[in-house]
Amino acid sequence: MSDQSSAPVAAHEPPYYAVVFTSVRTEGDNGYGETAERMEELVKEIPGFLGMDSARTPGGLGITVGYFRDAEAIEEWRGDMEHRAAQKQGRESWYEGYTVHVARVERSYGFRRGQG
Amino acid sequence: MSDQSSAPVAAHEPPYYAVVFTSVRTEGDNGYGETAERMEELVKEIPGFLGMDSARTPGGLGITVGYFRDAEAIEEWRGDMEHRAAQKQGRESWYEGYTVHVARVERSYGFRRGQG
Repeated sequence: MSDQSSAPVAAHEPPYYAVVFTSVRTEGDNGYGETAERMEELVKEIPGFLGMDSARTPGGLGITVGYFRDAEAIEEWRGDMEHRAAQKQGRESWYEGYTVHVARVERSYGFRRGQG
Repeated sequence: MSDQSSAPVAAHEPPYYAVVFTSVRTEGDNGYGETAERMEELVKEIPGFLGMDSARTPGGLGITVGYFRDAEAIEEWRGDMEHRAAQKQGRESWYEGYTVHVARVERSYGFRRGQG
């Protein structure tokens, strides 16, 4: 991997959870970047948080996938007051639209070049 | 939504499946673009295919999420011979690394600006 920061989160031992967040942003930053960084820090403190993948096509769709050990870890993240405030701000100003899919991972696998 | 082509796939009635494919590309196209387009056409022919979201940060991570009605639909897509050939080519030349998470969606919801 030439750039370790862009390596995708590896497969964990199932079962675990994936929370898929797909979104289209409104124009302008409006404080989004700062809050997004803060949320990235905050979610790492949740026991059972396994990692996060994020990608955004410029001017297009963004996808963030958070991985959690179990449904309890997701509930804790859902209930976090700072996270709830950020979600409200998201609906008020940052997103044209989004979809959330909460899913239980049943099977996972991966490939890394040079590892067979 | 200002650009309908970039609107995320809407929440479906659970249960359904999400196949999360996260990847980092190698340098250059090497025939990837053409095959990716062909795969997008082909997967639409699978009964039970519900839609697909895709995003890639330039020079960074790509995430594609395919949604399927049930595990049988995923098996059919997994077994497609053209898809299998594309996967082989992916490991040979297009990807530095990837991870696949096959997950059963238990809950989903969405937000669209101007719809309450």
